[in-house]
Order: sequence, then C-alpha cells, then structure tokens
Amino acid sequence: MENKKVITAGIIIIGNEVLSGRTKDINTSTLAKWLNSLGIEVKEVRVIPDNETIIIETVNILRKKFNYIFTTGGIGPTHDDITSESISKAFKIEYGFHKEAYSILEKYYKPGEFTEGRQKMSKMPTSAKLILNPTSGAPGFNVENVFCLPGVPSILQSMIGGLNNILVGGDPIENITISLRTVESEIAKSITEIQNKNKDVEIGSYPFFRAGKLGVSIVLRSSNKNKLNKCNSEVLEFVKSKSIEIVEEV
Amino acid sequence: MENKKVITAGIIIIGNEVLSGRTKDINTSTLAKWLNSLGIEVKEVRVIPDNETIIIETVNILRKKFNYIFTTGGIGPTHDDITSESISKAFKIEYGFHKEAYSILEKYYKPGEFTEGRQKMSKMPTSAKLILNPTSGAPGFNVENVFCLPGVPSILQSMIGGLNNILVGGDPIENITISLRTVESEIAKSITEIQNKNKDVEIGSYPFFRAGKLGVSIVLRSSNKNKLNKCNSEVLEFVKSKSIEIVEEV
Repeated sequence: MENKKVITAGIIIIGNEVLSGRTKDINTSTLAKWLNSLGIEVKEVRVIPDNETIIIETVNILRKKFNYIFTTGGIGPTHDDITSESISKAFKIEYGFHKEAYSILEKYYKPGEFTEGRQKMSKMPTSAKLILNPTSGAPGFNVENVFCLPGVPSILQSMIGGLNNILVGGDPIENITISLRTVESEIAKSITEIQNKNKDVEIGSYPFFRAGKLGVSIVLRSSNKNKLNKCNSEVLEFVKSKSIEIVEEV
Repeated sequence: MENKKVITAGIIIIGNEVLSGRTKDINTSTLAKWLNSLGIEVKEVRVIPDNETIIIETVNILRKKFNYIFTTGGIGPTHDDITSESISKAFKIEYGFHKEAYSILEKYYKPGEFTEGRQKMSKMPTSAKLILNPTSGAPGFNVENVFCLPGVPSILQSMIGGLNNILVGGDPIENITISLRTVESEIAKSITEIQNKNKDVEIGSYPFFRAGKLGVSIVLRSSNKNKLNKCNSEVLEFVKSKSIEIVEEV
C-alpha cells in the first residue's frame, strides 16, 4: 500500500460529549473524505476529553507522527473550551488576544454586542495563522502542521474549503465500490487471492443490510488509477464467474 | 471530577472504512451510553487501520491505561479481518480454532454450509471467553480486560447486553440536560462560576441549531446524584434570574 507520495493526517476530536455518547462524531467522516480528495490519508483518530494535560500530550505525540493534524472542538467561548490555550502550551508559544481575530469578531458583531464571552473566541496562540469562518465569524487557527477547527459540523464544513490551497497533498486516493448480493464468507477466499495479487490497492469488505436484504460492499482504494482499474477488472471477472448479482457499482 | 469508584474504559475502532470517511462510527456512542449506565466512563477512543502492528501496539498501550478495553471490527471472515489474530499476538497467546466457538457455528449453519470462510470466524485466542452473538452466530471474545466485538452496529448492539453481569462498574453516571434559548457567549461567565463551585459535576455547553433556531444545551454529569441536583438547581436559578427561555429539560 505504500506510495512515494503518501501524505498522512491524524484527527483529534476534543470533547466529553463524544466520549459520553451524547454526540455522534461526524466530523471525522467529513475531514477524511475531504482529505482523501486532496491526496491525504487519515491514519489515526483519537477522541479525547476536554482536559488540558491530555490535549497537550496527544497533540505533541501526533504532530510528530503525521504530516498534518486536525483538531475539532473546544474553541468556543465557554469554560469547557480549552483547546486554544492547550495548543499554545503544547507549542510553548504565547496565548492571548489574536489581533486579526479580534478585529474580525469586532466587525462581525453589532456595536455593544462584542461581549467578554465573545472576545474570548479571539484568544489563541498570538502568532497563529487564521482559518476563516464564513458561517459564524469566529476563526479557527493553524500553528505549524496543526489545524484547529470548531466542533459544530456545519461550521467546520464551511471552513475547510479555505485550506485547499494551503495543504500539500499527494496523489488523490481514488475508490471504487462494488456492492454484491452475497455474504462475506462466500467470497472471502477469492478476494484474499485478488488482494495478494494487487498489493497497491487496499481492498475492504463490508457486509450491509439494506431494504431487508444482506449484501457485501467491496471497496477498492488506491492512489494509482491504473492499478485500481486492473484490480476492479479482476473483481468483476470473479463476480461474473460465480454469477453473483451486482447491486450497485460506483 | 474524580470519584473513588471511577471505572474507566477505552474504545479501539478498527477499520479502514472509518478512517477513509466511508463509514461513520456509531459504535462509540452505543458503547459509551451503555458503559455509562454501568458506571464505566469512556476516557479515550482511537480509530486505527486494519494493520497488525498498529492493533497490537494500541491494544497493549490502552489495556494498561484503562480498566476495560472494547475493540470493534475485524472479526469477520475476510482477508481484512485481522483483529482476532492480532489480539492473540498482543497477549502472546495461542491463536487457532476455539472449540466452543467452532461448535456454536457448526450448529448455526445448515449441514454443508459451514465453509472454510465461516470456519475462520471461530479462529481466535484459543483460551478466550466467548461473547455470544444472538443475531448472527459468530461470537466475539474476551481476553483479560479486552473485549472484542464486531463492527456491524446492529450485531454489536445485540451482544453487549450479555456482558452486563461480567463487567464491574462504579457508581452510574447520571446526567441532566437543560436546553436554553440563548447563545454560549451570553452564559459563559455564569456557567464558569457554577462549574467552579461544583467540582464534582462535569458541566458541558453545546450550541445547537434546531428547527431554525439557535440554542445551547447545558449538560450536567456526575456519579453523585445529590451534587448533580444541587448543581442543577444553581443552573436553573441563574437561568430564571436572567429570564432565559428553557426549551427542554431532561
């Protein structure tokens, strides 16, 4: 699976609400699909609590392990929003009012409405680069290879596009999904053989239950389009030879 | 937040399909809510690829860090299902056909249908305790404090009830959610003051956008019911004093 141009990322989901099960994390999926389209592979996700020591430790381990790190959550105005200060401590850089962020928020709110709580959202590493927020004003920020985004999915989604020209990706990871009317145990042996012959394609096998019927999705992923197509042909040939029904091919 | 009887858990989501963004993980939420009801707090979640070295390393780090570890995914019949063998290697114990698991699956399938692929699902650490699967036959397993469950959410959900009498929990973590028609920056200061006076209650603040209106959910969590109720009274008193509308209280 290794490719010369593999660029990697780690995601850190900061939030007690995910660890308690109250909130289902959907930011990982948004970030991963977007990063794949830029040729960046997510290699690890960690969900951690709103705890300064743990945030600092996790950021410092992962930022050395992967090309890019994305954090979500904890940059709002309340007492449990401690990501910005923790990131400053992780990098041992100054935490305080970020001039540009302060100025953006000051303009965003009506006169008299830029309260102390809202001002807090412009506190971050003072030397950080901003990640602009077209939805609700308060920017995220970037220090070295760490990009800090909010936890609210719709706001996060509106902000990531602004990073497309900043991140340096590898070859985009393409994928093909073939959904079959079969069960995993029927195809396990043949798919293993195809995987062994196609080392540069990652083949995943995922059972599903849709509209009352069982099936298996075979997902092929690779940053090499020719190798992906060759592997796809081999899967389709095997499927045809066994007369397995194809439910969907995308 | 520390309590004499805090029992902790870590979750390891094994699966390239989550890292690629194709599948949104919902098992974390299922496991966390269930564990909370048993008085067990999830402290960390890691999503990792179907990679033997990484599975072994992650399991060996986390099983020493928390009371219980739950893994999801990778125990099916296909080539990318490598969790069972990796767990055997993590514990340096024998991997092979588990007699009881083999016997369960042999009875589950019709004569002649217990194929090589299906037999693979009874391969695991031979000394493991089984976690029975009322939905689709193939059991999960337990070695020391590590519990290995499948990735398919409906099957996982059907299996966890069988562990209620095996896990030893602490005081159940109770929670109260108060949803307010306000924005975070309006209440940040007062909620910080309440948090500072109520150290044994974890107060979370989560903005929401529902039916076209903005609001904030205040979530109080504690394993001490009296302290939880005291904190709740203080929040309600503050809300009343500021004439903030309560949308919902559960």
